Amino acid sequence: MVLLRRVIGDTLRAQRLAQRRTLREVSTAARVSLGYLSEVERGQKEASSELLSSICDALGVQLSEMLRDVSDTIAIAESSMGVLEPVGDLEMVSEPRARVRAAHDVVAAA
Amino acid sequence: MVLLRRVIGDTLRAQRLAQRRTLREVSTAARVSLGYLSEVERGQKEASSELLSSICDALGVQLSEMLRDVSDTIAIAESSMGVLEPVGDLEMVSEPRARVRAAHDVVAAA
Repeated sequence: MVLLRRVIGDTLRAQRLAQRRTLREVSTAARVSLGYLSEVERGQKEASSELLSSICDALGVQLSEMLRDVSDTIAIAESSMGVLEPVGDLEMVSEPRARVRAAHDVVAAA
Repeated sequence: MVLLRRVIGDTLRAQRLAQRRTLREVSTAARVSLGYLSEVERGQKEASSELLSSICDALGVQLSEMLRDVSDTIAIAESSMGVLEPVGDLEMVSEPRARVRAAHDVVAAA
């Protein structure tokens, strides 16, 4: 399963590193704690809508742009899930959602 | 400020209504409580990444598609924030982010 918070975290970190800024700089600008920003970047914490706006703001990117990058990354992951799975069950290949559900069941059962 | 969870909620609800499905049907399919789904749709609760995947799954939409819709909606809101502001301060018109920050300060001070 593609985890949204992980892709958001990767996208925010990539943007910060592209600007050669430290966690401390961006967390100060965004008025969030360094630890919180670090956890968000590592996909360990869900960022609230307000704090996601603040972080995008601090990075000088529009929230919509960031989400578009995230959407593009997830779309690639979704399509590769469709391509890379064994082709034994054609219905599952054409319906990646069924596989996501199966993966979710595994997580839910754990 | 554009609140991500509100746009996500509106997008999910619009998708559900377009399919003429009830909160109960979708919440059962997504294995979330009806109350939780209702709160997410109204933008009152942040959906976790796992539950957002489940809800998209239940609606039969890719997470990436849903996020693209959300990004498009937010982009429109961002650009209208840029257009509708008084043109007294050109820098602020060209930098909608400054206005988002100002709005955020108001929220933070409240």
